[in-house]
Amino acid sequence: MPPGRSRQANAVHSEFALIRRLRAQAAQPDPQVIKGIGDDTAVIKTSSTEWTLITTDLLAEGVHFDPATSSFRDIGYRAAIANLSDIAAMGGTPRFMLVSIAIPPTCSQAQIEQLYRGMTQAGAPYHVRLIGGDTSASKTGLFLNITLTGVVKPRQALLRSAARVGDLIYVTGTLGDSRAGLDLLTSRRRPKLRPIHTRFLLARHHRPSARIAEGLWLVKQGLAGAAIDLSDGLTGDLRHICEESGVGVEIVAGSLPISPACRAYAMARGLAPQQIALQGGEDYELLFTVSRRMQPRFERLIGKSGFRMTCIGSITPKASGLRLRTDPGTTQPLPLTSYEHFLRPT
Amino acid sequence: MPPGRSRQANAVHSEFALIRRLRAQAAQPDPQVIKGIGDDTAVIKTSSTEWTLITTDLLAEGVHFDPATSSFRDIGYRAAIANLSDIAAMGGTPRFMLVSIAIPPTCSQAQIEQLYRGMTQAGAPYHVRLIGGDTSASKTGLFLNITLTGVVKPRQALLRSAARVGDLIYVTGTLGDSRAGLDLLTSRRRPKLRPIHTRFLLARHHRPSARIAEGLWLVKQGLAGAAIDLSDGLTGDLRHICEESGVGVEIVAGSLPISPACRAYAMARGLAPQQIALQGGEDYELLFTVSRRMQPRFERLIGKSGFRMTCIGSITPKASGLRLRTDPGTTQPLPLTSYEHFLRPT
Repeated sequence: MPPGRSRQANAVHSEFALIRRLRAQAAQPDPQVIKGIGDDTAVIKTSSTEWTLITTDLLAEGVHFDPATSSFRDIGYRAAIANLSDIAAMGGTPRFMLVSIAIPPTCSQAQIEQLYRGMTQAGAPYHVRLIGGDTSASKTGLFLNITLTGVVKPRQALLRSAARVGDLIYVTGTLGDSRAGLDLLTSRRRPKLRPIHTRFLLARHHRPSARIAEGLWLVKQGLAGAAIDLSDGLTGDLRHICEESGVGVEIVAGSLPISPACRAYAMARGLAPQQIALQGGEDYELLFTVSRRMQPRFERLIGKSGFRMTCIGSITPKASGLRLRTDPGTTQPLPLTSYEHFLRPT
Repeated sequence: MPPGRSRQANAVHSEFALIRRLRAQAAQPDPQVIKGIGDDTAVIKTSSTEWTLITTDLLAEGVHFDPATSSFRDIGYRAAIANLSDIAAMGGTPRFMLVSIAIPPTCSQAQIEQLYRGMTQAGAPYHVRLIGGDTSASKTGLFLNITLTGVVKPRQALLRSAARVGDLIYVTGTLGDSRAGLDLLTSRRRPKLRPIHTRFLLARHHRPSARIAEGLWLVKQGLAGAAIDLSDGLTGDLRHICEESGVGVEIVAGSLPISPACRAYAMARGLAPQQIALQGGEDYELLFTVSRRMQPRFERLIGKSGFRMTCIGSITPKASGLRLRTDPGTTQPLPLTSYEHFLRPT
């Protein structure tokens, strides 16, 4: 769920309650359903050799994207990445895409084609096939729903619920870039950055990566416990891991991986870069846990893999909640204020 | 595609062209894809004993539903039926549902819960399980996307492309009731009908049936060729069959199955009931073809089944186009004017 969704408190407050109630309703076990509501994707036992993953995401104009700051091709690309990233977080291989769009009268056919072009382009490296969908009219804005399937070998899906107390928490890539890029697009007073940094942050916003290769690698090594993709922002997504695994977390602020461009942006805006990393969303990096005793072996494997993966904290008992360590020996509750909130000049 | 979608000429004109282009792009064959874009559902070969069906439908407030004339529970119910009906048209058994909603600030939590209640109620007779989805904010209206999966035995799916010249065309149930019900809800001058007829037409609009049992029965008998569900209205859906099978059709106006309530409504409005049957949408009945030489056997089977199935015409060569026989020996092109058009007083 991209950060824009939290702009409407009503919808988001009710989301957690709604999910809980829907799960309770669907409580009768079904032997074919490995995982229903509450993970990055649903997991279905389709055969003895394969489990099927399914995820769906609805994006609304003015909430999740804005044609004033993104091209239609980029909007399509990012929408597909949001779904690909869910498959990545399960350690799966993406397969088939279905696309529904509700088109307002203001959209041209060329724009809609660009939207599809962006979606198919994002899926092309993984040979994702568009196999169906629905087009209809919208009286208001553009709405785009993608359903994506994937596959994973039986018992190999990386679940949100598999985090254990003592596990270490890792993330791929760097955090906060996409949000810094979005801020550059929407700020009235755009901070002065080196062009290479501006280009990097805008590219990370418009063309994020789905960490499919990393997810598959994690499954292959067999050392990851829980996993989730970072769409809400680190703080929001940690909440999901804690909720599903029944645990707490302690994040070490100084260990958060931040790009030089994001650091430069934070400095220009007078912000702590860790704040952007903690609360900026749509990074589409993976967050996952690894048992502490496997750390030396895991670090060696990372070294050989060529992937960037950083240890940012550990899993704690549920009663500890979500905490942030700023200095050695000093922790505070992870700030749950929204990103918008702390960005405002005080 | 419910009839409301044709209210916006732009979106609908581009739909056919868009589908053609997307199909051309996805032209490289994939051994796992039995059917991609262009049927009621996509068909995926998931195992040697089972094919998976997937369909998705996006419904927009003010285009496909109106909270002023439908309760949230009925909106949810009809949305689920639209998808269940796609599975029925393939001869499949529905399995899993994923629901995305974009919620405007005007919607209460109770209303959203009613919406979900309607969806789960529609799926309950078939043990459909809600396994995932997405909730987010909308700045404008309510948008609802359902993705539904189903299963069918290998090589048993009923495809739109299987109609052959000479085949007979059958439909289940009666046609036009849902549209007459919608007209009753939206007319300023509501025609006077017997209460039993009004109740019937409103129920057929708010609570249509998905013909799952009929679809499964057709697969079991093994006599049906092509099949489609009637969501656009008979004329629009016949166009899909003709397009996918490369054929024409001749419909016999006098044979169209019309309920007493719909006849009474047509009379009260001064309309030909056949017009409502031809162009009213959202009946969610099945239309299918049967080889002419199998007719006697098929009619006997219908008699034993307890289902209402009516022969309404036959498949003709493509060059003949879509024609309507009004009197013996007299045919005319099937009127492609929209329902709204002919309803207007002339």
